[in-house]
Amino acid sequence: MEITLKSPLDMHLHLRDGDMLANIAPYSAKNFSGAIIMPNLVPPITTKESLLAYKDQIIKATNGESFTPYMTLFFKNYSYEFLKQIKDEITSIKLYPDGATTNSDGGVSSFDIEELRETLEAMSELNIPLNIHGETNDFVMDREKNFIPIYRQLATTFPKLKIIMEHITTKDAVDVLDEYDNLYATITLHHLLITLDDVAGGMLKPHLFCKPIAKRDEDRDALLKLALTAHPKVMFGSDSAPHPKSAKEACGCAAGIFTAPTALQELASLFDRHNALDNLQSFISDNGVNIYQIKPIYKEVTLVKKDFIIADEYNGVVPFNNSTTCSWSIK
Amino acid sequence: MEITLKSPLDMHLHLRDGDMLANIAPYSAKNFSGAIIMPNLVPPITTKESLLAYKDQIIKATNGESFTPYMTLFFKNYSYEFLKQIKDEITSIKLYPDGATTNSDGGVSSFDIEELRETLEAMSELNIPLNIHGETNDFVMDREKNFIPIYRQLATTFPKLKIIMEHITTKDAVDVLDEYDNLYATITLHHLLITLDDVAGGMLKPHLFCKPIAKRDEDRDALLKLALTAHPKVMFGSDSAPHPKSAKEACGCAAGIFTAPTALQELASLFDRHNALDNLQSFISDNGVNIYQIKPIYKEVTLVKKDFIIADEYNGVVPFNNSTTCSWSIK
Repeated sequence: MEITLKSPLDMHLHLRDGDMLANIAPYSAKNFSGAIIMPNLVPPITTKESLLAYKDQIIKATNGESFTPYMTLFFKNYSYEFLKQIKDEITSIKLYPDGATTNSDGGVSSFDIEELRETLEAMSELNIPLNIHGETNDFVMDREKNFIPIYRQLATTFPKLKIIMEHITTKDAVDVLDEYDNLYATITLHHLLITLDDVAGGMLKPHLFCKPIAKRDEDRDALLKLALTAHPKVMFGSDSAPHPKSAKEACGCAAGIFTAPTALQELASLFDRHNALDNLQSFISDNGVNIYQIKPIYKEVTLVKKDFIIADEYNGVVPFNNSTTCSWSIK
Repeated sequence: MEITLKSPLDMHLHLRDGDMLANIAPYSAKNFSGAIIMPNLVPPITTKESLLAYKDQIIKATNGESFTPYMTLFFKNYSYEFLKQIKDEITSIKLYPDGATTNSDGGVSSFDIEELRETLEAMSELNIPLNIHGETNDFVMDREKNFIPIYRQLATTFPKLKIIMEHITTKDAVDVLDEYDNLYATITLHHLLITLDDVAGGMLKPHLFCKPIAKRDEDRDALLKLALTAHPKVMFGSDSAPHPKSAKEACGCAAGIFTAPTALQELASLFDRHNALDNLQSFISDNGVNIYQIKPIYKEVTLVKKDFIIADEYNGVVPFNNSTTCSWSIK
């Protein structure tokens, strides 16, 4: 059995910089036609110069593969004029609550709409989508649920702004998706597969630790339903977020799960198990193309139902489900 | 400021065996008059021979300190005759659900009362208390809450059996405590201080990972209230559970927090902060003496309000709050 995916896209990707970028970017570039590149470097990407320099680094790291890095800015208050002149270089702007995850310092610390209004109105007018890491600073299992009122307020106040709820993890986020025309979502591979039980129910598993943290069965099941039916407002975004093995198996383990080299194979396996392979093309590419109105490079990736042993490490980074066998491979 | 504790007791302690026992038993023996010793070795303590041999090892490891190891058996179905002849050697019997925590394989896999009746009736009659690790195999945050009906059923069915809910972590367990005369509880130091946010809300902290996992603020607050008021049915049980550093900072991190060398100092600091030092004697000793009807060795441990820097490691084991400063010391 085979499936050929046309222009698979990763609508939420961390490529880091420096050596890590060089080590891991080729995996995404090989398997995907393009990816939305998160801007949470240190310092974050907030200027045209840093954006273009980062884009150059990514292109160098991807070694001539046909792969488009869709660039994003780190959200802060920007003027209309700045956004207008950078518009053609960016695909969207990513909003982090201050301190919500890896390298999010300097993110938004108040969701007082008036403080955000000028920038969000400019983005609406210029048709620049807003990616949001939607978590409050409440109890870890409640953070996404408690962010929903902020999504509601933003969706209502800026009805022409495309708002993408990134890496959703809860039934609460699933439930709000269809209430507002301008809300969309990305879902990771790992949140379709694991719950908090996998992270902390047996041994503690640092390589399954990410933000937002995996939730309950009923949350995972709600996400699965959206993905497997390829709900048109939902896109695949891996949130693949590499850290060196030494930063994961440590006294304080950094948040992030690395799935770039294996996401397509694991998704094919998952969709196949649920008899939903026909919907994978929409989830992995078409929905994102429609939502962002982008025209990705044409690229075919054929997967075949044949065992693939996931490596224990990829250039010093331990992947999701390391050293296990996935039932689909890239041909 | 000073406080002199008389015969402090640790009513739930893991001393392990072999090198680990030799490395860590002296810390408990120095600070405590005695401790209830958990039987979850590999293989577990289920015979008189292994019990007495383990007791000997502990006494050797404690180097002549005046310290009583109150021995426990690993629960399985035992005959009345066996329990009668071992009664004087044990303080209680510890029940683990199969697979609930470190070295709990072979524990109870069914809570069908009829399967447990003979042993529990014998224990009632012989006045042998039952320690329970009260967790089901449900979602990790629900396991203790979902075990409450089993506590209720046991407490009702065996009204003369003293049942100790070990290392309680939830408001649900606190709420059931006073409903049955024969229910008691131990509380650890760490569950008085941390929530899941400390374990997984920022970086993932393997040295704060234990079973049952730390819960929510409202749970921690309910436990704190019980401890600080020295509720007469509640005792201190550290659940100090050492693992080598390499087993904690690993791909799969073992459950257990090591507090033996620092629990008294941290408890004095905690009770002092809450103006509850007057209740520490009851929590740390008197309640346990009354509940178990034991007569511990008389031993005074004086603590003084003076900074104490918790080591980064004690013989290869990273303690709770390593490398931080506690405001109370042992004099």
